[in-house]
Amino acid sequence: MKIALAQINPTVGDLNGNRELIVRFTRRARNEGAELVIFPEMCVTGYPPLDLLDNPVFITRTEAAIQDIATQVPVDIGVLIGAPLKNPQKTGKKLVNTALLLENGSVHSKVVKRLLPTYNVFDEYRHFEPASNQQIIAFRGLRLGVHICEDMWNIADYANYDLYDSDPLADLHDQGIDMFVNLSASPFSMGIHEIRNGLLQNIAEKFGTPFILVNQVGANTELVFDGESRVHDATGALVCRLPAFEESMAIWDSSESYSALPEPTAAENRLANIHQALVLGVRDYFDKTGAFSKILVGLSGGIDSAVTCAIAVDAVGADRVTGVTLPSVYSSAGSVDDSLALAKNLKIDCDSISIRPAVDAFSQMLKPSFQSTTSGTPEENIQARTRGVVLMALSNKFDYLLLTTGNKSELSMGYATLYGDMSGGLAVLADVFKTIVYELAEYINKKAGFDRIPRNTITKPPSAELAPDQKDEDSLPPYPILDEILRRYIEERQDLDVIQQTTGFDRGLIRSILTTVDRNEYKRVQAPPGIRVTAKAFGMGRRLPVVQRFER
Amino acid sequence: MKIALAQINPTVGDLNGNRELIVRFTRRARNEGAELVIFPEMCVTGYPPLDLLDNPVFITRTEAAIQDIATQVPVDIGVLIGAPLKNPQKTGKKLVNTALLLENGSVHSKVVKRLLPTYNVFDEYRHFEPASNQQIIAFRGLRLGVHICEDMWNIADYANYDLYDSDPLADLHDQGIDMFVNLSASPFSMGIHEIRNGLLQNIAEKFGTPFILVNQVGANTELVFDGESRVHDATGALVCRLPAFEESMAIWDSSESYSALPEPTAAENRLANIHQALVLGVRDYFDKTGAFSKILVGLSGGIDSAVTCAIAVDAVGADRVTGVTLPSVYSSAGSVDDSLALAKNLKIDCDSISIRPAVDAFSQMLKPSFQSTTSGTPEENIQARTRGVVLMALSNKFDYLLLTTGNKSELSMGYATLYGDMSGGLAVLADVFKTIVYELAEYINKKAGFDRIPRNTITKPPSAELAPDQKDEDSLPPYPILDEILRRYIEERQDLDVIQQTTGFDRGLIRSILTTVDRNEYKRVQAPPGIRVTAKAFGMGRRLPVVQRFER
Repeated sequence: MKIALAQINPTVGDLNGNRELIVRFTRRARNEGAELVIFPEMCVTGYPPLDLLDNPVFITRTEAAIQDIATQVPVDIGVLIGAPLKNPQKTGKKLVNTALLLENGSVHSKVVKRLLPTYNVFDEYRHFEPASNQQIIAFRGLRLGVHICEDMWNIADYANYDLYDSDPLADLHDQGIDMFVNLSASPFSMGIHEIRNGLLQNIAEKFGTPFILVNQVGANTELVFDGESRVHDATGALVCRLPAFEESMAIWDSSESYSALPEPTAAENRLANIHQALVLGVRDYFDKTGAFSKILVGLSGGIDSAVTCAIAVDAVGADRVTGVTLPSVYSSAGSVDDSLALAKNLKIDCDSISIRPAVDAFSQMLKPSFQSTTSGTPEENIQARTRGVVLMALSNKFDYLLLTTGNKSELSMGYATLYGDMSGGLAVLADVFKTIVYELAEYINKKAGFDRIPRNTITKPPSAELAPDQKDEDSLPPYPILDEILRRYIEERQDLDVIQQTTGFDRGLIRSILTTVDRNEYKRVQAPPGIRVTAKAFGMGRRLPVVQRFER
Repeated sequence: MKIALAQINPTVGDLNGNRELIVRFTRRARNEGAELVIFPEMCVTGYPPLDLLDNPVFITRTEAAIQDIATQVPVDIGVLIGAPLKNPQKTGKKLVNTALLLENGSVHSKVVKRLLPTYNVFDEYRHFEPASNQQIIAFRGLRLGVHICEDMWNIADYANYDLYDSDPLADLHDQGIDMFVNLSASPFSMGIHEIRNGLLQNIAEKFGTPFILVNQVGANTELVFDGESRVHDATGALVCRLPAFEESMAIWDSSESYSALPEPTAAENRLANIHQALVLGVRDYFDKTGAFSKILVGLSGGIDSAVTCAIAVDAVGADRVTGVTLPSVYSSAGSVDDSLALAKNLKIDCDSISIRPAVDAFSQMLKPSFQSTTSGTPEENIQARTRGVVLMALSNKFDYLLLTTGNKSELSMGYATLYGDMSGGLAVLADVFKTIVYELAEYINKKAGFDRIPRNTITKPPSAELAPDQKDEDSLPPYPILDEILRRYIEERQDLDVIQQTTGFDRGLIRSILTTVDRNEYKRVQAPPGIRVTAKAFGMGRRLPVVQRFER
């Protein structure tokens, strides 16, 4: 049977838009001869709809959208979609997360998700009641092992313990199936491709059964879904693969045999994936909100704003990106020059507005209050906040989406000014450590074939330029050491002892970094959403108390 | 048996501080003749510890704290405490939420929580595996039906459906118990007292069994726990009651009979509870962070900043609160006068800093960019953000905790400037609709016996004073109508049709309000934490996508 994998990019809550997308891809699949088309998890609502699910009208409308899809698609094709539905049981959560097979204008079969991820960025048990068993969908002579996303993830080889005590895949296999079919909304993070692909290969091989994965693509606020939908045959070999980070469709014929496709290596993928994830994150935020005329980036001459700006151009095109430099008395001449060189390379407009008049005005206004105090961080913050006011004024006046440029190292340490450089709608590098920002810059330049990001921006020592001759390393440990400690603490969940034993770094240094990270939660709760590219990003997936006193 | 109810105020993560608190209250209980002392849910860690629970070291330290408590308390008293522990099972979540009976220097018995709230502000299934059954704790001849918080909440009379298909209370009762003992961390919201107290009365009466509730008191970031621990006897009568919003202890003797105590009525409680919750929310944020010298409030002459400032004074005392007025060319003379009158009434210092120099500087700096545009919201935002810069400069320089003053009506509608009046560490009125802010002002004045909040502040029409003769009602519907619609949408989860049918308000108006609320999620995700006083506050309990396109 010809089966289409429809890797679509739905928008959360856009029931009409998503319906049209599903109908359009179904028609295309039918035109290409498919008898069955498979869409991602919760494609009717987009994933994750979060507490939109708490609104009963949202669920009623979702049900109506499903009926509309059933009647608007061609009658001679099976359409497997994902959607939340009311829980028919008298007890439990009010909803279930389902896969629905539509055929001949109505719902032919239904499968309910059994394993509900409720950790990190996932909150599914907040809304959904899990299924207690697993049922096969029979369709035109095929026995389909349909299941949803997490249902495939309880494989002992791929976790150091079993999160769930049930195994949906084994239960499906025991009932006799021709293939596994997984509808997913599995977000990107660094390394996830290799883990997910290895898992699929392992499952197909272990059960001697072909495996079809259809994964959502596109960004919805913090989360970027990478797609990379695929089929592994009964030997585990990859025989069909859709591109990552793009809306796409492919047809796999279950009666044909295919030769194995090559899988890109982790090393090849790493920076390209991060770059594509960030580009898609910016593009979809811009397109799906539909609220902005252009993107605005404040250019400091430093590497963070340069990389952010290049990503913005890659996301929406140079004609929809504008830069502005905001020099102060502490800005080096090189800073403005580097920004102008970047703007030229990126082919974007770049304005320049000196912040000096407002900084002087604040200085005068605060003189009576600040008399007999010494100048320090508060004065530096005034500069950063003056820049924030100017950037937001431009954003408000011209409907620009202001991007923040701070990286994960800075955000970890609170080395950023709340309402200053933290002002903006989307934090592009919030989940990218400074050392990786450098790698990204080199990747971008290599891809362009020239120093699109000026060499001087990459080579000069990083500085906030808020005080004379200031350098980041006056306040922070060298980034390679800092990032190593931060990565272990935040992403690997290691604490003081383990980090010290593994790295041999100074215990006092490690403790002070961990404490600084914890204490700066108050800034991060007011940060704009960041694009998630690691397994543990700040934001919805890392919920720490602002007021707390855990001491090591 | 004499049983002590120890209603303590733990700080999240403060394992040493909480240990000392538990030991101190246990000694006091023993000195007063108690044989058993009962503490709230998770009192060792404070509630909610959120993702501190993901740190294995935090759990190891919690276990060590439990051992320390066991050895430091007097040997001849049973101590019932709550704490997270490692899940001993091979599968499932890594932790369990437990009640532990300590006696003679070690853990005598353990009970695991069975119903794990995972909705609204609660995320317990994120971390904990539920118990599958219920066990009695036998202690010195008494059979105690110990259970934890949510375990008592699955009573059909108190919900319109059963969230869980098990009933811990019935299971305990079936095993034969002398009393129910509930360890809670049940946060305050308007009306919760009446619901919770009614539930307890109902349970005690239904099972003919006394019921002891010990509830956490104190605020931890957004959540305020009200305590109001109590005992209902086997007839359902209230026979022991601890005060709400205060750390406290009482002893109840299970062998004595008591006459029923009066329960404050909902009407008596309403404004007093909101006021006390806000005061405790501010005080605990200030005390538990320990990072601030004073509280700073920007005074506009309006009712929101006046009520916020009065609450701050009630929380930490007049000598630790300072006000500042930040007049612009659009500020009425009355605004500054009203602020000075308020400061005099509250006995706080009040400085005045004109924002004009910086506003003029921004105007000059932006002139080339803004030429041939008409003045509007962007220019208004510049004023609000200039105030934000000055307030944050004072906060940074003098370690002041800056409070934001916006109310729930404004926050709902985005009628606030991001990085302007939304700047600050804690949003005191973020969960209080404007109409209730007025009621609070009258309550505060009545309690004081004079117009502590100046009469003129209450009677003048609300205005942001960012443009000539501006009034809130130029941009917003009248507050009584707006708040009615907002309350139904946000707190009652009603949507367009139901609100229209129930209120008869204009359909277009309702739709536009609902859409405005949705669209302004981007501002609220960057708002400081607010003190929760309703069943549905913005913040951790209401998680809406920033990028979404649900249309009615």
